[in-house]
Amino acid sequence: MPSRFDTLAASLRNSNLDAVILNPGPTLTHLSGLHFHLMERPVVLLFAPGQKPAIVLPELEMQKMVGQDMQTFPYSENPADWDAAFRAAIASLGLDGKRVGVEPRQLRLLEFNYVRNAAPAADFPDASSSLAELRLRKDPLEVQRMKRAVEIAQNALESTIPLIKVGMTEREVSSELVVQLLRHGSEPEMPFSPIVSAGLNAANPHASPTDRKLQRGDMLVVDWGAAHDGYISDLTRTFAVGDVDEEYAKIHKVVQEANAAGRAAGKPGATCASVDKATRDVIEKAGYGNFFTHRTGHGIGMEGHEEPYMRGDNMQLLEVGMAYTVEPGIYLPGRNGVRIEDNMVITENGAESLSDMPREMRVVG
Amino acid sequence: MPSRFDTLAASLRNSNLDAVILNPGPTLTHLSGLHFHLMERPVVLLFAPGQKPAIVLPELEMQKMVGQDMQTFPYSENPADWDAAFRAAIASLGLDGKRVGVEPRQLRLLEFNYVRNAAPAADFPDASSSLAELRLRKDPLEVQRMKRAVEIAQNALESTIPLIKVGMTEREVSSELVVQLLRHGSEPEMPFSPIVSAGLNAANPHASPTDRKLQRGDMLVVDWGAAHDGYISDLTRTFAVGDVDEEYAKIHKVVQEANAAGRAAGKPGATCASVDKATRDVIEKAGYGNFFTHRTGHGIGMEGHEEPYMRGDNMQLLEVGMAYTVEPGIYLPGRNGVRIEDNMVITENGAESLSDMPREMRVVG
Repeated sequence: MPSRFDTLAASLRNSNLDAVILNPGPTLTHLSGLHFHLMERPVVLLFAPGQKPAIVLPELEMQKMVGQDMQTFPYSENPADWDAAFRAAIASLGLDGKRVGVEPRQLRLLEFNYVRNAAPAADFPDASSSLAELRLRKDPLEVQRMKRAVEIAQNALESTIPLIKVGMTEREVSSELVVQLLRHGSEPEMPFSPIVSAGLNAANPHASPTDRKLQRGDMLVVDWGAAHDGYISDLTRTFAVGDVDEEYAKIHKVVQEANAAGRAAGKPGATCASVDKATRDVIEKAGYGNFFTHRTGHGIGMEGHEEPYMRGDNMQLLEVGMAYTVEPGIYLPGRNGVRIEDNMVITENGAESLSDMPREMRVVG
Repeated sequence: MPSRFDTLAASLRNSNLDAVILNPGPTLTHLSGLHFHLMERPVVLLFAPGQKPAIVLPELEMQKMVGQDMQTFPYSENPADWDAAFRAAIASLGLDGKRVGVEPRQLRLLEFNYVRNAAPAADFPDASSSLAELRLRKDPLEVQRMKRAVEIAQNALESTIPLIKVGMTEREVSSELVVQLLRHGSEPEMPFSPIVSAGLNAANPHASPTDRKLQRGDMLVVDWGAAHDGYISDLTRTFAVGDVDEEYAKIHKVVQEANAAGRAAGKPGATCASVDKATRDVIEKAGYGNFFTHRTGHGIGMEGHEEPYMRGDNMQLLEVGMAYTVEPGIYLPGRNGVRIEDNMVITENGAESLSDMPREMRVVG
């Protein structure tokens, strides 16, 4: 089996790139197994096919390099020394004047400026698609890790549901859910902090939990996930707090149907756009098209948001091993909202949902 | 009282900058109160003194803008539309050809490329120091929030200590600590995932918790923090798991003395370098200078790592309200390590430690 660096080398050659630079993030971890935090000390991995990978890093991180077959360019705590470490690494790989791919969504000006200063004649084209390609089709081990991350998340929410009461704040529900995620085995470094939003806050798809107390009649959106062995889950269920307005029960039903249609639409050879259309058609037909304000989903794996994106304009074809969310929603501004989200993976015959927690409207409180 | 935007305007004029661009992060939140996550959809706040701030953001985040006095440039889910939103915002503020400051540690190429395409004749100097200035001196309300974040962290670790047993893994201790942080009131979005490292892993200052089980004779380093109202704490204590080697008890004592010397060294008008020297002198005198491989500390407030940095080469003068960590350590490669970290704030008369949890070597397990 070729190493992931070999796969990257082939992908770079296809894209006519001489090298790539990566800062801490999922691509660096996927390739090397190394974990670094994004901080004020720049860390950059440089890879040029046919050469040993090079890494510029703080001296105090050097112990992470034991067992790695890389050239290391450590620097001291004094920022005045950092430039020299970058220059030595760039010179060692001979990158000046070359086409050095970057990952704009991840790379900061902090790292980029050091690299550019050391390679003033280089070009820095966007290598996002070559790099995304590396992680696009999940192998069986990756799918197994994602399944476990889903399982942990589902178990954690099931343990939280009986504790949810009218009068609790969104923050309290969110904290309790995090406790349960940890108890059920999530890694402490979670993919994202759970969204717990109720009533008018549920009308905001990206709400942060507030001190607002749960009230009877609220819809309660819980968007949460777990991390397991570097892979994550990202799910949403929407609950009714006591009796809710008839319209809210209706939009819940519409969203549930849209979610089912979106889950059914995925298969090898289908476009991402067709998955988006499947959910959107259901919501539009029910008269709520204007209140479904976001795309149907995003890729998932080591990150919460990665390729492929389930958007109406994305004609990318689904392939076996691609994994993504299906998460239609209806948001009634100033009133309430509903979203139902599952994690899918494309199989030979269609799309499998990794998540199976009940989707119908359950009553809490 | 001038608004934070007024303070920024004055600071930009002093630095001869016409404007500044910010992506999601503590500076944006400090200025505006707005929270966004860094994701694949770029969000940028543009500010030019004398004009209403402008923000480019996804349509689905527009509900966050209620009550904000800003020009908004929302874009749809289709990335083909994003460039136009950036161009409209840049044009509205007239930024092309101007000196537009950036924050390299925060800004990604993703956001920067959109801005640069829309303002090809602009310069983009590093505005980090003007921006750091905004958050450098904590006001009493900020100090109060930091104190609360320290209190939550200390209470959480005190609740965790009795649960720590020989045979538990580092990961299990870390998860339990996170549970206790939440129970004691930390915001779910924590400053960082606790470092729990024992034995030879404790010799790595930036270790991530592993499945290694605690053994008698280990030193156990716990580096943890809480978040409260947007402010954080960042503390470290080191424990002995049962009886430990005499040398480990000795280095614990040395680090404790170095920590005390570092805490005592802070006062208005002292240099950051003098705080670093105070801790380092103690460790060097004890013969372990080569094993204290990092700076003495970093600024703290909304972020774990911000200005001012306690480094031997930093001649910056401390002023009332500056807040920072004092965290000397000794790391014996392949064997064990010790670090003791407190959070300080400069007062009229010296430096106050916000943390007061016992620092002597306690035995656990």
